[in-house]
Amino acid sequence: MGKKRVMVPADKLDLSTVKYEQEDIQAPHLTGLMLKLFVWILEAPVIGSLVISHLKKQNKMVEMLQNTVIPEAPMFKPEFPPQETEPSVVIVDEDGKPEERVESALKCLPHYDPATCWSGDSLPSFRYWKIRDYAYAYRSKLVTPTMVAEQIISVIEGCKFHKPPTPLLVAFDAEEVRKQAAASTQRFEEGNPLSILDGIFIAIKDDIDCYPHPSKGATTWMHEVRSVKKDAVCVSRLRSCGVILIGKANMHELGMGTTGNNPNYGTTRNPHAPERYTGGSSSGPAALVASGLCSAALGTDGGGSVRIPSSLCGVVGLKTTYGRTDIRGSLCDGGTVEIIGPIASTVEDVILVYAAILGSSPDDRICLKPSPPCFPVLSSLDNANTLGSLRLGKYTEWFNDVHSTGISDACEDVLSHLSRTYGCETIEIVVPELHEMRTAHLVAIGSETLCSLNPDCEDGKGVKLTYDTRISMALFRSFTASDYVAAQSLRRRIMHHHMEIFKKVDVIVTPTTGMTAPKIPASSLKHGETDMQVTGYLMRFVVAGNLLGLPAISVPVGYDKQGLPIGLQFIGRPWGEASILRLASAVEELLSTKSKKKPASFYDVLKTK
Amino acid sequence: MGKKRVMVPADKLDLSTVKYEQEDIQAPHLTGLMLKLFVWILEAPVIGSLVISHLKKQNKMVEMLQNTVIPEAPMFKPEFPPQETEPSVVIVDEDGKPEERVESALKCLPHYDPATCWSGDSLPSFRYWKIRDYAYAYRSKLVTPTMVAEQIISVIEGCKFHKPPTPLLVAFDAEEVRKQAAASTQRFEEGNPLSILDGIFIAIKDDIDCYPHPSKGATTWMHEVRSVKKDAVCVSRLRSCGVILIGKANMHELGMGTTGNNPNYGTTRNPHAPERYTGGSSSGPAALVASGLCSAALGTDGGGSVRIPSSLCGVVGLKTTYGRTDIRGSLCDGGTVEIIGPIASTVEDVILVYAAILGSSPDDRICLKPSPPCFPVLSSLDNANTLGSLRLGKYTEWFNDVHSTGISDACEDVLSHLSRTYGCETIEIVVPELHEMRTAHLVAIGSETLCSLNPDCEDGKGVKLTYDTRISMALFRSFTASDYVAAQSLRRRIMHHHMEIFKKVDVIVTPTTGMTAPKIPASSLKHGETDMQVTGYLMRFVVAGNLLGLPAISVPVGYDKQGLPIGLQFIGRPWGEASILRLASAVEELLSTKSKKKPASFYDVLKTK
Repeated sequence: MGKKRVMVPADKLDLSTVKYEQEDIQAPHLTGLMLKLFVWILEAPVIGSLVISHLKKQNKMVEMLQNTVIPEAPMFKPEFPPQETEPSVVIVDEDGKPEERVESALKCLPHYDPATCWSGDSLPSFRYWKIRDYAYAYRSKLVTPTMVAEQIISVIEGCKFHKPPTPLLVAFDAEEVRKQAAASTQRFEEGNPLSILDGIFIAIKDDIDCYPHPSKGATTWMHEVRSVKKDAVCVSRLRSCGVILIGKANMHELGMGTTGNNPNYGTTRNPHAPERYTGGSSSGPAALVASGLCSAALGTDGGGSVRIPSSLCGVVGLKTTYGRTDIRGSLCDGGTVEIIGPIASTVEDVILVYAAILGSSPDDRICLKPSPPCFPVLSSLDNANTLGSLRLGKYTEWFNDVHSTGISDACEDVLSHLSRTYGCETIEIVVPELHEMRTAHLVAIGSETLCSLNPDCEDGKGVKLTYDTRISMALFRSFTASDYVAAQSLRRRIMHHHMEIFKKVDVIVTPTTGMTAPKIPASSLKHGETDMQVTGYLMRFVVAGNLLGLPAISVPVGYDKQGLPIGLQFIGRPWGEASILRLASAVEELLSTKSKKKPASFYDVLKTK
Repeated sequence: MGKKRVMVPADKLDLSTVKYEQEDIQAPHLTGLMLKLFVWILEAPVIGSLVISHLKKQNKMVEMLQNTVIPEAPMFKPEFPPQETEPSVVIVDEDGKPEERVESALKCLPHYDPATCWSGDSLPSFRYWKIRDYAYAYRSKLVTPTMVAEQIISVIEGCKFHKPPTPLLVAFDAEEVRKQAAASTQRFEEGNPLSILDGIFIAIKDDIDCYPHPSKGATTWMHEVRSVKKDAVCVSRLRSCGVILIGKANMHELGMGTTGNNPNYGTTRNPHAPERYTGGSSSGPAALVASGLCSAALGTDGGGSVRIPSSLCGVVGLKTTYGRTDIRGSLCDGGTVEIIGPIASTVEDVILVYAAILGSSPDDRICLKPSPPCFPVLSSLDNANTLGSLRLGKYTEWFNDVHSTGISDACEDVLSHLSRTYGCETIEIVVPELHEMRTAHLVAIGSETLCSLNPDCEDGKGVKLTYDTRISMALFRSFTASDYVAAQSLRRRIMHHHMEIFKKVDVIVTPTTGMTAPKIPASSLKHGETDMQVTGYLMRFVVAGNLLGLPAISVPVGYDKQGLPIGLQFIGRPWGEASILRLASAVEELLSTKSKKKPASFYDVLKTK
């Protein structure tokens, strides 16, 4: 019989009494045969639930959700207090045409100088081709979308023969790509491209509908029970801008993992280190962008799934405010933590894609009351005016609680850099109840995922899931309805804590992940892997963005000793995309002098010129 | 392994295909020893959960919540589309002073003629003393609050000696009442009463905080784990109007039942038939008002708990729109279905008390966006103008699916009466998925109740609950987190169905209950009773008000052959209290010629005059 705990009301909590507690996850690391055995035990009638409840007790879940009086009423979805518009931004109409939003976003970007990309002689340091580089090339007839398409197609078809195999896409149709490219090429010939995104190649994560491809969520069967009749809302917005959709990107099965391990279609390799994970669950999207194969990709982020692989692959990933982008037409619609967000090689490309896809769904508007979306004006003048006024909140003990050496230093450098150059003040903060936050998030995302899978799992499809997914499912099945409600009360508490923090600072800054890209155990390729310690390190800093629906961005800030990318995360106020985009762009500019590392598996799709 | 079911999207549902399905609840009716045995089985480790899951399967819960694809996203709390203000109403500021709101409500009432109450000669038919009767008596010095207090105190202290015992209050302090009465009497002497409610005697259900009394929720232990330091928000609003709070009214333990059966403090008897139940869970509040012991009472309604006893006791009960009254300071705060609502002997008294207590909580405003509260102007002119424009929706098969003879006829009479007198049109409607609605409601209220009780039940208090509460708890424990989420998707569907109905009609009309007051089995007094069939009849028509947060009112419309009261229910649009109050008042007026039956246990507290 548990001992009853009583939490003080959130608004009475004395932060000076809060001690930072290191995360201590109790769970076995298993691959191969042991993994299969463990699943077999967990799914056995009586013993299985005994093991699960033992694990739940060990990880304090019963104590937190059943033995504790939580004074707050449940908050089932992020509920945001009204927010002020950020300074020096351009406000756009979320109901307007995507092309028009992209146009306004374009006006916010700094002057574009083709020379930096198109000067004949070799460049000082490696760089990705930006959307505006392609746009310039198309408009000045240096290259056509069809020419680029052929390059991409040959590379992707080449992937089949890679050693080790690098499954970037789980659905790809060369003819589909050629058709879109031809149409775009013709628009340029006729001199009327649809937008700056016309002819830009973008990949879609496999859990977002992109007609005519199936949405399998990287399972072997989802397409058999759920057919795709049209694009997801976000994808159709991209299409109306002239984007060329190259196919469905690989992912961790159903997004239920953070490494990108995938026995069904093969595990995507990290472009910076083929023997290592990309991170997940948006493994394919991040790898495709990091490889330079496409300008951007759409991912889903319910528990860091956009930010983690972006960080591990050295690209930029934006987790939008909950409800800012329309989730309809993805496998995880109906959840309270997931969003659709863009991944790209630069902040400006993230802004352009974000401009195209944003716009909340009618259902969400009733409760969420979105502030009008806006973009930061990225001139050095505006930066000078606004960046200095941004106060960065840092919880040092948390910030430094990382596994890979080099992460803290690289992130710390950026902060002092920002303060030196722009006078951004870093303020020490305390984020209480981090463990409660992780637990509430796990219960929310787990229960909502299970609910959407139940009808098919009852139909026996559950056994066709990978072993690590089945372990997660076994855990999720053990969550009771009252666990779920209790988790929502924790959500209200933790929302309160964060809104208090945002009275003192404008942005919370953390590393994106607690470790750089982990090695792929050979034994995990065939049957998968469960390693909650690694999951803990990868998810350490991402959860507030999901449980509370806050916007967050991961931006590359260098490499560790092994040359693996390191990401820095800015977490913004509700609807505060503009501030974190501005900061990310400033970081990018500050570090642009440092040469960017060329990914091992980099494909120069423009090598024709 | 269940067979997968797929629901068509709510907006594609073809109503012409909907068949009315009679409710068919599979559960044993138990009292005494069998009841104890059943609880013992349900709480046994393995067998218990087997029995529960068998019952859940039998009642289609697994099919509906786990084997069915529900296309809608979850709606965790009522989300209302924007509403127009109703015609011929007075709008008030919910943030204003309660006294001012009561004053505006008073202005909406028809002219008051003291003669109807205070003419010396005996009245044509029995009637309750209205709030305005007391107000007149106080202001014209016919009687003082202190004089009335002494009458009430003597009656309540007399209750101890009643055969059979009629436990109306579970917390009562004569000195507290005398103190409040003296203060009120003095205000009248000084000629400055606080409002029309000054000196009015009101009882508070035992699950709403009323300082200095404990809030036990009619349990034996709740006060040991939860202390009361101040009034609930609604109660403090009454106090600031000068109301005299007579104590904590008896109820079904923790509101988890619809009969009012209560082994802890005794079962409140129906004033119209002492051998029968009052209905519940607000048994005490309804009985106190029906007995004429106090002018009004506050109840909570999470599953008909205000309307059911009002109907069975022949008084008026208002279930307010979710969030219209502030739930903070009640045992069921934090739920998604419960509200606090007034019970009184007449509609005008309900309006005056409603005016005092209304006002949503800050938390609720973020999501609920309450329309401004308003009161109907109750002059015969305004009625003539507005009543005729109100279209009443009636689902005949549902309307007539009742257990007690006389209910359908009595309710039907009123409708034709309304149409003859005011030209109110009755329109045939179809309410689809009634069984889904009941299931979604059960999962919501059960899971939320369990969550708030868990920390104390883990502490061993659970075994101190009554047997029928423990049966409910065993069922609630079996609800999984994904059941809860699925139930919320059903909530969005059913909200859609109702909003479609409210495009065709202004109000939905049903009997309040499917049966009149049931007999109290002698064997149920000591250890309680479980009878899901009776629960089904009593809750048959009330659930939409709770799951969807719609306002609803029960108004007496006569008596069955055994002389037991019959209630009619009007269900309004979101925030549509004014329309249903106007209709209820019109019904009252139409029936006022029919003499009202004098309750067996009627106490004329004004007999002094």
